[in-house]
Amino acid sequence: MKHIEHIGIAVKELATAVPLFEKLLDTRCYKTESVASERVNTAFLRTGETKLELLEAADEQSVIAGYISKKGEGIHHIAFEVDDIEAEMKRLSEEGFVLLNQEPKKGADNKLVCFLHPKSTNGTLIELCMEIK
Amino acid sequence: MKHIEHIGIAVKELATAVPLFEKLLDTRCYKTESVASERVNTAFLRTGETKLELLEAADEQSVIAGYISKKGEGIHHIAFEVDDIEAEMKRLSEEGFVLLNQEPKKGADNKLVCFLHPKSTNGTLIELCMEIK
Repeated sequence: MKHIEHIGIAVKELATAVPLFEKLLDTRCYKTESVASERVNTAFLRTGETKLELLEAADEQSVIAGYISKKGEGIHHIAFEVDDIEAEMKRLSEEGFVLLNQEPKKGADNKLVCFLHPKSTNGTLIELCMEIK
Repeated sequence: MKHIEHIGIAVKELATAVPLFEKLLDTRCYKTESVASERVNTAFLRTGETKLELLEAADEQSVIAGYISKKGEGIHHIAFEVDDIEAEMKRLSEEGFVLLNQEPKKGADNKLVCFLHPKSTNGTLIELCMEIK
């Protein structure tokens, strides 16, 4: 684990959340991206070495729609940058953490990602991510 | 807003959460601190320029006890380091954010802090913090 690459925040509508977080951080959203496989639309803002990733459900089947209907808008996950995602998945699995995907998968922002089950991480959804070179 | 100073995570027991997050981050907890005014016991782990602050309720009146009984364990707040907390509180108040304390107050880790009401920040509890010099 190198550092926090981003924090994912579930929002109902990017149209209202983006200007709100722009005012909060006093910075501009520098990228938006739709990830069809995850059924989400994302918007990124930078803060130091970390990003905020705002996550809007692209449709009602999206996990973000389910999350918001259950828990409301708010912090959804913490993503850590790793050098070698397969090695880190192996290390964490051996430490007893539960991987939600057994192979790295393509996420937003040109990353390979893997999620850990929050039941094994004190209720905190954790993502590992590695830049695709 | 300079960068994310820490992420606060509500946990039932530091005794189990600290070793779990030590394994997750592959690093050691470097400090624990009790904050009587907030009725919390805290433990810190470093990750890049950011910290994870694990928060355990010191008693049942603690806001952390209330949070866990309502929402379960998990990510509680995001704290941003600022250079001038009073100037930032003024800026954010003028932008329409709701401050939970009108004056900076003493938090953990030798900081002056101010929280923003999550109703004004998309459900995300935001803390501003400034090192006491």
